[in-house]
Amino acid sequence: MKALRFEKNGLRIADIIEPRDRREASVRVLLAGICNTDLEIARGYAGFEGTLGHEFVGVVESAPDETLVNKRVVGEINAGCGACALCAAGDARHCPRRTVLGIVARDGAFAEYLQLPVENLLIVPDEISDERAVFTEPLAAAWGITERVKVTPETSVAVVGDGKLGLLCAQSLHHAGARVVLVGKHKEKLGIAERRGVETVQVDELQKSSRSFDVVVEASGAASGFALALELVRPRGRVVLKSTFHGATNFDAARIVVNELTIVGSRCGRFAPALELLKEEAIDVESLISETYQLANGVRAMERAAARGVLKVLLRP
Amino acid sequence: MKALRFEKNGLRIADIIEPRDRREASVRVLLAGICNTDLEIARGYAGFEGTLGHEFVGVVESAPDETLVNKRVVGEINAGCGACALCAAGDARHCPRRTVLGIVARDGAFAEYLQLPVENLLIVPDEISDERAVFTEPLAAAWGITERVKVTPETSVAVVGDGKLGLLCAQSLHHAGARVVLVGKHKEKLGIAERRGVETVQVDELQKSSRSFDVVVEASGAASGFALALELVRPRGRVVLKSTFHGATNFDAARIVVNELTIVGSRCGRFAPALELLKEEAIDVESLISETYQLANGVRAMERAAARGVLKVLLRP
Repeated sequence: MKALRFEKNGLRIADIIEPRDRREASVRVLLAGICNTDLEIARGYAGFEGTLGHEFVGVVESAPDETLVNKRVVGEINAGCGACALCAAGDARHCPRRTVLGIVARDGAFAEYLQLPVENLLIVPDEISDERAVFTEPLAAAWGITERVKVTPETSVAVVGDGKLGLLCAQSLHHAGARVVLVGKHKEKLGIAERRGVETVQVDELQKSSRSFDVVVEASGAASGFALALELVRPRGRVVLKSTFHGATNFDAARIVVNELTIVGSRCGRFAPALELLKEEAIDVESLISETYQLANGVRAMERAAARGVLKVLLRP
Repeated sequence: MKALRFEKNGLRIADIIEPRDRREASVRVLLAGICNTDLEIARGYAGFEGTLGHEFVGVVESAPDETLVNKRVVGEINAGCGACALCAAGDARHCPRRTVLGIVARDGAFAEYLQLPVENLLIVPDEISDERAVFTEPLAAAWGITERVKVTPETSVAVVGDGKLGLLCAQSLHHAGARVVLVGKHKEKLGIAERRGVETVQVDELQKSSRSFDVVVEASGAASGFALALELVRPRGRVVLKSTFHGATNFDAARIVVNELTIVGSRCGRFAPALELLKEEAIDVESLISETYQLANGVRAMERAAARGVLKVLLRP
């Protein structure tokens, strides 16, 4: 089968054997999405080699649980060892020996077929199109903030960064009831959130000194975004770190201590509430789709995904 | 009166006029303690010029509230503007226009007299000696962790750093009921916590990979201590930042996001519970006193406080 792989020599479309571990489900990929993490891996920052991709919707071809066969599914990307204390407590997401689809020791979704444990799969309701279902994983990650930080209608939130992740975070927190301001650089991108009722502001028009937020979400993926977040948050407020900068980043420890800030790292989220949000059409994800490519043109698709101004790029096997 | 001051030309004992603002209380200082923050200010890192010192016990000489006169007191160090939203909510500690005793725009405690608003003062119970009462401020800061992070007998805590602050933090969290391990470099210092029932370990004997703590308190004041804290904490655990490193510090943002850690900045604490702890003799503070100097020898005392192996140095006006 075809797969978009990152190996020592770089990114390429390879012909590889279909995965056939009968203890797991085999899923035929319908549509997959390119995430910034994929771009980081392709730059060699993450130490992963293999088939990329962790955002997908597909159809189960075979599975130990036969009731799943022919069902349309999405899948949680962390597969725990099943034996450690964290797995026993139901937290495979942090199992130290976990594999992660297209990220850690497990081939990913930019292929005709992928494999995952049956317990990772969730059936997609018919109301949700493939184009929307493929956003389940990133939307779960955005909605996951509400698991880590409670928000109410009184909570003022700034989201820093108007990329894919920032747009999902801003809409999610707005839907959760908070008073959200999305801070970005791109008028068209900010417009997507505005159409859903989110207040937006251009970063260079921001009156830093006059704003003071209960919660600031750093979703820009840049160290400068984190520095801005520390400026925007009120004393005793919370900064949510969504994006994994690569390498070490400067940070102002004194500001965190003196202002008694809380920095909350947030990575994955649960899929079930994300599917619910997609079913309700609570979040605009279609507007985030910039381009769709055939898997065979995956290398070009990755280049486009890294280009300025481009939001979500999809791959169709 | 005599005062130990930091000015452009450095640290010196000066003769200055007694403070006489009748809207505030005037306190004759009995004993004051040198804190690492004082050492940072004397290195020019904090931008403060004036009389140093914020840890003290004294006797009220005059006050708008006459019932306080002749009472032995300690004092909360932040004085708010009294007008802003934070002050109105009772949080002068984070008022953006606050003055801070010996730290921000207010002469401090290394002098014969100091001034504070009446509402900052707390009467010291007779059972607490001057030598113990002078630890109220740093003990409040250590105990303040329990305000920011709930601990139970099931909570495993590592405290990184066996200096003054680390010893107070370890004892406080142990007293609060957590399972505490103090990580340090100095056998004698670790011994102080051990005598109060705290488990200790030398940093070079620490099996990093085998330890995984719910909470790690960084009290070493070094960037390397923060890096160690990030290694010791379990996924979804909390790192408490107690110490203000100066300048920017490298940190591994990806580890915070991927392991979904929470970083909690913690600075000051409330004085009332600290006085209660001192009254109950719940915390050994006397063993932390290394040396006591006359205020006239304050410059020498500051040198000693900065020397390796020295814990708390006190000043007596």
